[in-house]
Amino acid sequence: MGFVDQVETSSAGLSSGMIDDLKEAVGAEKVSTAEEVCREFGADRWHAAAMPDAVVEATSRDEVVATLKFANENEIPVTTRGAGVGYVGGCVPVKGGILLSVRKMDRILEINPADGVAVVEPGVILNDLQEQVRDKGWYYPPDPASLKECSVGGTIATNAGGPRCVKYGVTRHYVLGLEVVLPNGEILETGGRCHKNKTGLDLIGMFVGSEGLLGVVTKATLRLIPHPEARAMLTATFANFETAAEAVQTILNSGWQPSGLEITDGFTLQAARDYLGPEMLPDGDAHLIVELDGRKNTVLQDLGHLKTLVESLGAVSVEEARDKESCEAIWTLRREFSYSLRDTGLIKLNEDIVVPRSRLVDLVRFARQLEKDTGIPVACFGHAGDGNIHTNLMVKNYDTDPVAREKADAALDILFHWIIENDGQITGEHGVGLAKKRWFKDAVSPVSADLHRQLKATLDPKGILNPGKFIE
Amino acid sequence: MGFVDQVETSSAGLSSGMIDDLKEAVGAEKVSTAEEVCREFGADRWHAAAMPDAVVEATSRDEVVATLKFANENEIPVTTRGAGVGYVGGCVPVKGGILLSVRKMDRILEINPADGVAVVEPGVILNDLQEQVRDKGWYYPPDPASLKECSVGGTIATNAGGPRCVKYGVTRHYVLGLEVVLPNGEILETGGRCHKNKTGLDLIGMFVGSEGLLGVVTKATLRLIPHPEARAMLTATFANFETAAEAVQTILNSGWQPSGLEITDGFTLQAARDYLGPEMLPDGDAHLIVELDGRKNTVLQDLGHLKTLVESLGAVSVEEARDKESCEAIWTLRREFSYSLRDTGLIKLNEDIVVPRSRLVDLVRFARQLEKDTGIPVACFGHAGDGNIHTNLMVKNYDTDPVAREKADAALDILFHWIIENDGQITGEHGVGLAKKRWFKDAVSPVSADLHRQLKATLDPKGILNPGKFIE
Repeated sequence: MGFVDQVETSSAGLSSGMIDDLKEAVGAEKVSTAEEVCREFGADRWHAAAMPDAVVEATSRDEVVATLKFANENEIPVTTRGAGVGYVGGCVPVKGGILLSVRKMDRILEINPADGVAVVEPGVILNDLQEQVRDKGWYYPPDPASLKECSVGGTIATNAGGPRCVKYGVTRHYVLGLEVVLPNGEILETGGRCHKNKTGLDLIGMFVGSEGLLGVVTKATLRLIPHPEARAMLTATFANFETAAEAVQTILNSGWQPSGLEITDGFTLQAARDYLGPEMLPDGDAHLIVELDGRKNTVLQDLGHLKTLVESLGAVSVEEARDKESCEAIWTLRREFSYSLRDTGLIKLNEDIVVPRSRLVDLVRFARQLEKDTGIPVACFGHAGDGNIHTNLMVKNYDTDPVAREKADAALDILFHWIIENDGQITGEHGVGLAKKRWFKDAVSPVSADLHRQLKATLDPKGILNPGKFIE
Repeated sequence: MGFVDQVETSSAGLSSGMIDDLKEAVGAEKVSTAEEVCREFGADRWHAAAMPDAVVEATSRDEVVATLKFANENEIPVTTRGAGVGYVGGCVPVKGGILLSVRKMDRILEINPADGVAVVEPGVILNDLQEQVRDKGWYYPPDPASLKECSVGGTIATNAGGPRCVKYGVTRHYVLGLEVVLPNGEILETGGRCHKNKTGLDLIGMFVGSEGLLGVVTKATLRLIPHPEARAMLTATFANFETAAEAVQTILNSGWQPSGLEITDGFTLQAARDYLGPEMLPDGDAHLIVELDGRKNTVLQDLGHLKTLVESLGAVSVEEARDKESCEAIWTLRREFSYSLRDTGLIKLNEDIVVPRSRLVDLVRFARQLEKDTGIPVACFGHAGDGNIHTNLMVKNYDTDPVAREKADAALDILFHWIIENDGQITGEHGVGLAKKRWFKDAVSPVSADLHRQLKATLDPKGILNPGKFIE
C-alpha cells in the first residue's frame, strides 16, 4: 500500500530482565530488540503495523517450543509471522510482546511422488515448492497471487486459495499432516502421509486457517497430485458484466470443469487500457479468462469446443492461448490489472469478499451504486467460479487525508454489511486479521462466536497467541 | 455380516417417569421403547449391537433440540443414527440411553446450480441426492459403496470417501455450511453457500468426521460441481500385484488424473472366478481399474493413449469401456468382488486401512505373510490411488466359534499394529466407531489424544453424545 500506520500496542513492554531470560531460553542470537528489526517484522502488506518488544527468528522446532514455553509461563503475547505478505494485518503484533518469525525454517524436507507428498517447514516460499514439485512432474495447486513471496506456513494460516481453486480446492484440501507447537510448548503431530484418514477428529482442519491463534505450525505434509500434462486458455470480452456473468453460469452448466475462471469489470478494464494502451484489450466492458487443463493431445480440441460455446454466448471477442507461452501471457495480463489500478494513483483497498455465484451481477451493480453514492471508484475482478470477487475501493489520499479515510472506511462498512446481508462471506482467502475484525461479529452468529471463544480458551487458555485479532 | 452380537450396555436404564418426560419434551409419537424398535435401531452393519432405552425418530430440528436439551439436563446418553449402514458400530448405543434417529429428516431442500449448492437434511439417501443433482447436469462426488443406502448425515459423520476421491476428494471438501444442534440444545449455523470462506475457524471441519461425538447435524449445504460430460474406463490384469502397483505409480507419474484407480489382489480375483465363472476375468493375479472423465469428444482419445501406456507396463490383458453401459458393467464387476468374498462362506472382516501409496506392495506382502502365519485368508482390494486398501480377513465361523474369533481378533491386532508402524492409518473412510476403538490410542499421539479429550469436554461437557466411542 506504500505507507504504514503504527497501531498503538497495549503492551506493557518486556523488561530487560525478561529479554535476557528470553535470550537464555531461545539463544541470544535468535532474539532481537533492535528498532529497525522490530519495525520490519511488525508489518505485513496491510496499512497498519505495530512494534513488538522483541523478534525471535526461529530456525528449528525446538526454538519455537522454547519461545512458546517462555511466553506461556510469563503470559507474553506471541504473534507468528511467515513471509509477512498478508493483506489483512494478520501477523501484526497489536499487543506487542514477541514476534516469532519462522521464515528461516525454510527447508523442503522431502518431495516424494511415490507417496504423493511433500514435507516442508513453514518458511518455504510457495513458488519454490511448486517449482521443485513441478520438476518431478507433480503439482501442488494452491496458488495465491503472492506465491512468489508468501510462505507455505502463511498459506496454511489463511487457508489460501487462488485462481485454480475453482477446480482444485483450497489449501485445506492439500494438508495431510501437521506438526504444531501448542501454546504451552507441547508438540502435536496429527495426520500423516496417507491421502485418506478418518482417525479421530479433524485436528488439521482446526489449525488450517486459524491465523496463528491456536498454535505454531513447524512442519507440514502436503498432498501432491499429478501435474496436468497441458493447459490452454480462452479470453473473451463482453459488452457488459451481466453477459459475462451469464457466460460463467453457462460454461459450468455445460459440464466444463475449468482450472481457472476469472472475471473483470469495466472499471478495471478501463484502468488497464489507460495503463497498457488501448490496443492491449479488445472492446468490451467485461473480460473473462477460462483455463482448461488435461492431456496435450486433446486439450486444444476441448478448447475449440469451448470457444464455440463462448462465441455463442454474446462475446464481443474471443481469443485462444494454445501453448504455454500464450497462457503465461494471459496470466501476466491478468496481473497487470492490479498494476493498472495501482497506476491510477489511488490507494487500493482490496477486499476478498465472496458471494454465492448467482449474485455476481448483484455485487457489481451494488459496487456501481456504492461508487455513485460515495464518489469512490470500485474495481471488481477475481475468481468468478467461486464467487470470490476481489472488490477494490480506489481511494485518493487514504494515507494522508483523514476525511478521505473516514469516508472510505464508511464505504467499506456499507460494502461488508451488504455482503453479510446477501449470504456472502467477508473473506475468501486473505483471512480476517485486523482488516476485517470489525465485521467478524456480524458475519458469524452469536453461538458461533461463543464457540470460537471456547475453542480458543481450550487451546490457548492464557490467550498468548496472536491476541487482539478476531477472537477476544 | 449376517449375525448380531449384543454388547452389554452400561446404562442404568431410563425410568418410566423419565420416558414420560422425554415424550412430553419431544412428542409421544416420536418416542418408542418397543423392544423390536430398540433392537432395529441399536445395530448398524458391524457385528455387535446394543439396546437403547428409547428411540426418538426426529422429523425436525426442533425435535432434535428438544431431545438434546432433555438429555443434557438429565445427563442421558444420546447416540445419533442416520441410515445405520456403517461398518464400524459408530452409531451403536453402547451406553444405552436415547437413540436419536434422523432418517426421517430426509428432505432435499434445494438444488441450485447457479450457486453450485444443494441444501439437504441429514436423512437424505446419498444416491437420491446424486441422481437429482445429476438430472440438472451437476455432480456431488462423494461415493461410498453404500451410496444407495447411506444417509448424507452418515457420510458427514464419517467424512466418507469412495473410488472417486482420488480425483475429487472426500466429503469434507464438499460441505460449505452446516446447521448443528450442540449438546446443550443450542443451534450452531456455520459456513453458508459460498464456495470459499475464511471467516474465523473451520468449525465445519470440526463436525465433519466427528462420528456423532460433538453435535447433531440437522442441515447441510453442499458444494456441487459441473458433471463431467463423459466417462471411459480401462481394466487390466497383471501377472502379479507388484506389477499392478508399479503401473499405478507410472500412470500417476505420467500426469494422468484418473477419476478412479482401483486395485484387486489375487485372492479376491480367485474368489471372483469361483463365483462368477473363470471366463469373467482374464488371467492374472492382480486387476486394475482406471476411470477417466472429461469431454465426450476427447475422453476416448485420452483412453486410447492411456491404454497404450498400460499395455507397455506389462499388463496381461487390457480392455476398454467406451460407453456408459460398459463403464457401469465394470463397476458392477467391481462390486461383485465383494459378493464373491461373501460367497466363500467365510465371514469378512472389512478393514478400510490406508498406507502411503508407495507401500501398496508391502501391504499385500504383509497380508500374504499374515495369511501364512494365521491360516486366515486375507483379501485386499480398493482405492489404489489413495493407498486406501480394504483389507478383508476371511474368517470361518467368526460368529459361532469363540476360538476362531479370538484367533481372528489377534490377527487384526497384528494387522493394525503393522499399519501404525508403517505410517498407515487405521481408517480411511469408515470411521473408528467400536470396531477400531482399541487401536485408536496407539494410532494417535498422547498429545493428540489429550486434545481430543479437551475438545470433547469443551463441546460436550457432560459427555452425553455417543459415549463409549473413541474419546473417553
